[in-house]
Amino acid sequence: MNTSAPLPGSAPDTVTTGPIGGSKKVYVEPTLHPSIRVPFREIAVTDAQTPAIRVYDPSGPYTDSEARIDLAAGLPLVREPWVQARGFQAIEGRTVRPEDNGGVGPDRLVAPCPARRRLRMGRPEAPVTQLEFARAGIITEEMIYVAHRENLGRAEALKDASATIAGAESFGAAIPAFVTPEFVRQEIALGRAIIPANINHGELEPMAIGRNFLVKVNANIGNSAISSGVAEEVEKLVWAIRWGADTIMDLSTGRNIHNIRSWIIRNSPVPIGTVPIYQALEKVGGDPVKLTWEVFKDTLIEQAEQGVDYFTIHAGVRLRHVPLTAKRVTGIVSRGGSIMARWCLAHHKESFLYQRFDEICDIMRRYDVAFSLGDGLRPGSIADANDEAQFAELETLGELTKIAWAKGCQVMIEGPGHVPMHKIKLNMDKQLACCAEAPFYTLGPLTTDIAPGYDHITSGIGAAMIGWFGTAMLCYVTPKEHLGLPDRNDVKTGVITYKIAAHAADLAKGHPAAQVRDDALSRARFEFRWDDQFNLSLDPDTARAYHDATLPKDAHKVAHFCSMCGPKFCSMQITQDLRRDVLAMEAETRAGMATKSREFMEQGAQLYVPSVE
Amino acid sequence: MNTSAPLPGSAPDTVTTGPIGGSKKVYVEPTLHPSIRVPFREIAVTDAQTPAIRVYDPSGPYTDSEARIDLAAGLPLVREPWVQARGFQAIEGRTVRPEDNGGVGPDRLVAPCPARRRLRMGRPEAPVTQLEFARAGIITEEMIYVAHRENLGRAEALKDASATIAGAESFGAAIPAFVTPEFVRQEIALGRAIIPANINHGELEPMAIGRNFLVKVNANIGNSAISSGVAEEVEKLVWAIRWGADTIMDLSTGRNIHNIRSWIIRNSPVPIGTVPIYQALEKVGGDPVKLTWEVFKDTLIEQAEQGVDYFTIHAGVRLRHVPLTAKRVTGIVSRGGSIMARWCLAHHKESFLYQRFDEICDIMRRYDVAFSLGDGLRPGSIADANDEAQFAELETLGELTKIAWAKGCQVMIEGPGHVPMHKIKLNMDKQLACCAEAPFYTLGPLTTDIAPGYDHITSGIGAAMIGWFGTAMLCYVTPKEHLGLPDRNDVKTGVITYKIAAHAADLAKGHPAAQVRDDALSRARFEFRWDDQFNLSLDPDTARAYHDATLPKDAHKVAHFCSMCGPKFCSMQITQDLRRDVLAMEAETRAGMATKSREFMEQGAQLYVPSVE
Repeated sequence: MNTSAPLPGSAPDTVTTGPIGGSKKVYVEPTLHPSIRVPFREIAVTDAQTPAIRVYDPSGPYTDSEARIDLAAGLPLVREPWVQARGFQAIEGRTVRPEDNGGVGPDRLVAPCPARRRLRMGRPEAPVTQLEFARAGIITEEMIYVAHRENLGRAEALKDASATIAGAESFGAAIPAFVTPEFVRQEIALGRAIIPANINHGELEPMAIGRNFLVKVNANIGNSAISSGVAEEVEKLVWAIRWGADTIMDLSTGRNIHNIRSWIIRNSPVPIGTVPIYQALEKVGGDPVKLTWEVFKDTLIEQAEQGVDYFTIHAGVRLRHVPLTAKRVTGIVSRGGSIMARWCLAHHKESFLYQRFDEICDIMRRYDVAFSLGDGLRPGSIADANDEAQFAELETLGELTKIAWAKGCQVMIEGPGHVPMHKIKLNMDKQLACCAEAPFYTLGPLTTDIAPGYDHITSGIGAAMIGWFGTAMLCYVTPKEHLGLPDRNDVKTGVITYKIAAHAADLAKGHPAAQVRDDALSRARFEFRWDDQFNLSLDPDTARAYHDATLPKDAHKVAHFCSMCGPKFCSMQITQDLRRDVLAMEAETRAGMATKSREFMEQGAQLYVPSVE
Repeated sequence: MNTSAPLPGSAPDTVTTGPIGGSKKVYVEPTLHPSIRVPFREIAVTDAQTPAIRVYDPSGPYTDSEARIDLAAGLPLVREPWVQARGFQAIEGRTVRPEDNGGVGPDRLVAPCPARRRLRMGRPEAPVTQLEFARAGIITEEMIYVAHRENLGRAEALKDASATIAGAESFGAAIPAFVTPEFVRQEIALGRAIIPANINHGELEPMAIGRNFLVKVNANIGNSAISSGVAEEVEKLVWAIRWGADTIMDLSTGRNIHNIRSWIIRNSPVPIGTVPIYQALEKVGGDPVKLTWEVFKDTLIEQAEQGVDYFTIHAGVRLRHVPLTAKRVTGIVSRGGSIMARWCLAHHKESFLYQRFDEICDIMRRYDVAFSLGDGLRPGSIADANDEAQFAELETLGELTKIAWAKGCQVMIEGPGHVPMHKIKLNMDKQLACCAEAPFYTLGPLTTDIAPGYDHITSGIGAAMIGWFGTAMLCYVTPKEHLGLPDRNDVKTGVITYKIAAHAADLAKGHPAAQVRDDALSRARFEFRWDDQFNLSLDPDTARAYHDATLPKDAHKVAHFCSMCGPKFCSMQITQDLRRDVLAMEAETRAGMATKSREFMEQGAQLYVPSVE
């Protein structure tokens, strides 16, 4: 693991680079599209009969041992030629103002990322968003890119029949055996998938969020007034995508947020989401009552020009919903939701986000910023799950989805929250019905309230289930949820937990090729190829460290046991002996030289009874 | 936290005692049964309107600040008077032989626990087991004990209507609003629940395992030839039950296992389970082929006399099942299963466990050792889930269940293993059908193979789901699964993860009063009673430590924010302001002094729209 140029700000002043142990970055150019280079992570396997396993890789150039990382210059502009060719309008851009950075004085001002980019804006008369291109029948480079990315090594893997998942249940999803660019286009045109890709985010490696694609994971980063600086935040991004986060939300609320965001976006290969109301609130001194449409609109433009790929907009919190929360155990737990509820009640007016929704669409369309329609009234406790406030807002989000679609904008819908297991499925069903199959993006849900410190697990359970039921992207929860700001270890734990949930959902939905990695790891396990087992795991470093805690020697990496059972009690070793005996006896039988009893021959005939479901 | 007398062996040489922070042990004597003292853990709440929350507590005297722990003397014999009154036969007991401790020399021999107990054996003509008493219409003290234990503070809690769980789904379970001793008797008589309670385990605080009771959690402890000594093992027991493990399986396979087991049982308030074939294998030098019925039978009697409460018996692995595993990705992953498969194939004979099952029943009945019918052919990978080998064995376990019941023995059934989410429900459905509703006891299941190092999470997902579907007890999986022997931290992480899964299942099944703790914690969270929030959590120490990592001061324990969002962005604070405003406006309206607009009054009328599901 090597490190790059120092960043301004507090420790750590470098970001993590270099491949994850046992793997390397590879790029594949789709046939007919040599200018598109789709990244994968390829995990070597020592067994000669098993090809290297290719896995989805959102980590960007940071894990490419050939790449030279220069944070001040930003990442390579992989999308630049595609966007350039679309003839968007060049713009000067809005001038940065002191309040964009929370009015911080020159002594404490973090310098912006020096990387300069051409700024663009779409024109009213020509397609700008991926949705508009899709509807016009145009397959963009982004669509080609995600098609190849989603297939993994699927064409290769599907040669092996075991890659199909018997009896899977996808609850009405329509997952194809093979993803084509045209399939991606159709899904986007129908609103069932989005590619969050601001035209001002040229560093982006495009990805899709939709029920018929792999389940994705979002990680939240961001400072608060209490903690965190710029260097920590950029490293959190790099660290989160290293372990598999597919998108990052920057939820910063402190000072310097404009400039910190410039470092994040210029160095992010994944879509960046934000909640613009947070920065708008900073601009009015933190008092929700003082928020205005003008300040909010200015913030949208500011962030859209920077290249933010999706905005959480809490336009579903309407004045008439607020009283529905009065009897709740935990009221309103969404920050954006509580801010807007306060504004509505203080002014006794309908939310300006709701009333100005058309104008918000027009702004977001110009840059292809996707909507993440916020669930401001999501339940914050088991007691409040699936209540009237929550579902009233969901219905409003359904109305807004149709308006945004009519305006050409891409849309996904945010979901709960805290929901006991028996109420999870209804959330998915209602979301699909209300929002016409727009992708669902849920926080957890947490399946009990009683385990602060372990809410990555209370919510990982709910996330796996709702992912199976059809949620397209899962917003991670870290062990620090409800308690404090996550650190580096918490971010990793949260991401790995959610990669587990997402993968468990892919398996259960019957995503072709999802099981390839499980099977490769299990074969390695059965054959005592310990290094292969570690390298194929979601977190090779931890798997190896846990094993080596009791058996550190190199010789133990091929040992036919571990410290869990010890050498005499290893079932896998006993079974290998067993299989050897079974096969030897079979061979004898076939050769007509059977010395074993007649009984065994009869028994032997049953050896290859086909496996049934 | 104070500590007790040192134990022989390596560090740690003490066990953990003292209550969990913020709580105390209380005992309740059921009306009409003043001699029965049922333990609970009572968590104090600082809010004057909330009564102390009483939670189920398997931790025994170790968390009672009044108790004096003396490991050499063993725990108080709470069951002694009840068992004494049943007129069982006093016996001398089997003489301990060198091979019981693995033939270890005198220099390395761990002394047995010096606590001496009267040894007993049931008579053929009179009831011995809880099942036999139940069938005879007799309500034992153990049944009274578990009835009160299962109710928690349910009578109290149910006065509050919010304690009922709306729309819960129990998949055919029959959970009563209130558990009576007669209900317990009926469930046991039907075979739907067991109380594992060897008549030679007088230290036991009885507990029930059944689909219509709270979902339970088992933790495995045990040394292997590679690691662990006596002191570590006893502390693992104490540590595991401190965090909520309901039963403990001692899976030791190394030397000194007879004597270490004596320390564990004499100091265990929870049922202890073992897998006798492990010790039998030690007695024949570790070669499965050398196993005999005589050695196995001797081991059953040895362990039954010591007071083991349930035995895993892999009698479902039949000769004809072995070839069904030949094409599996991971063969046979159960240690006991692989041992028996090897024996069957080497001798080309039917398993002696299957052939001698009647005799095994007769032995186990004499001491009321419950069966845990082992799933020796459980799948060890996603690829092998729900295959022919697995379900063929399950059908055999169904046959054996009926034989054991006819012999008067209590029975539960072990289940998988590695199972993707979409195949979990079928496991539960088939188990209920094949085994006539005998309690199911599952390991996980793990929902993907790709996360060694995090298999508490891959399996916690499956455990929560199968617990909801009807599994009565969940066998924990620690982060070290597949990699090495768990240490103290791993045991705690495994137990807490499984308490989450079990509680999430209780909520979804609609267990009355399960939600009381969630609601109390969520109210504390909403009202910024940080200490209450920590104390009500499954692991107060971790919750407090995570909070204090960024906000350590006492003043922060009443602060209306945490470092996650900081003071300006706390949704709960904004909502509290909101609620105050709503209530103030309402009051104005009611007093006829409304100064707000007519519009608001109309709005105000909606404030108490009843909450709908």
